[in-house]
Amino acid sequence: MKVVPYETVPAADVTMPGATGCKVRWLVDEQDGAPTFALRQFEVAPGGFTPRHSHPYEHEVFVLEGEGEILEADLPRPLRPGTVVYVAPDELHQFRNTGPTPLKFLCLVPNSHRGAKVTTPAECDRPIG
Amino acid sequence: MKVVPYETVPAADVTMPGATGCKVRWLVDEQDGAPTFALRQFEVAPGGFTPRHSHPYEHEVFVLEGEGEILEADLPRPLRPGTVVYVAPDELHQFRNTGPTPLKFLCLVPNSHRGAKVTTPAECDRPIG
Repeated sequence: MKVVPYETVPAADVTMPGATGCKVRWLVDEQDGAPTFALRQFEVAPGGFTPRHSHPYEHEVFVLEGEGEILEADLPRPLRPGTVVYVAPDELHQFRNTGPTPLKFLCLVPNSHRGAKVTTPAECDRPIG
Repeated sequence: MKVVPYETVPAADVTMPGATGCKVRWLVDEQDGAPTFALRQFEVAPGGFTPRHSHPYEHEVFVLEGEGEILEADLPRPLRPGTVVYVAPDELHQFRNTGPTPLKFLCLVPNSHRGAKVTTPAECDRPIG
């Protein structure tokens, strides 16, 4: 069993093209022996965003703090603390912080995400801001 | 894509023997098309607890509100908002609310939990309190 405050897990910058102002903590993953899926916590700075992309695996998301939106393709849908999001495999999506404080959320992925193909629209290869 | 406030998902009483004062919301699961794992939110009333049991699948947990403990077999480990827990397959565990307000946490399971064998110690078949 692992029991830790999430803040004690080191946060790493998200260096994927198309991401701006994003950090990630891998809270539970294969290194802990987790056989099926990984629990990650993201922190997006004001004005920041995750890549606008799709991939053949799903996300399950719970918003902890802050305000923002998730783009469902081009449709913005609001995010607040307590918002739950399910992103199905191959759905185009992007998380954006539209508020004045960090947007913090949990975002889980199946272990099979490793090595899976990720499609990032061309404009996202050039980070903005 | 599904985007909902978690409170809008109906909460059901946990009727498993050994559970007292527990409600669960299935926030994302197979009914949403989620192929790998399910996102659930639990709410345990003051003095309440989940069954003391083990099962051959894992839990990944994030505490949202309240105070409590998780028993790792017989060892109590404190839970506060932001505490992350990984319960490996077959580990004996129980969540307990030791505070004055509801203990709220997310607890994820692989879809394979359905039909998996669950072992509940005999004393937990008689709910207390």
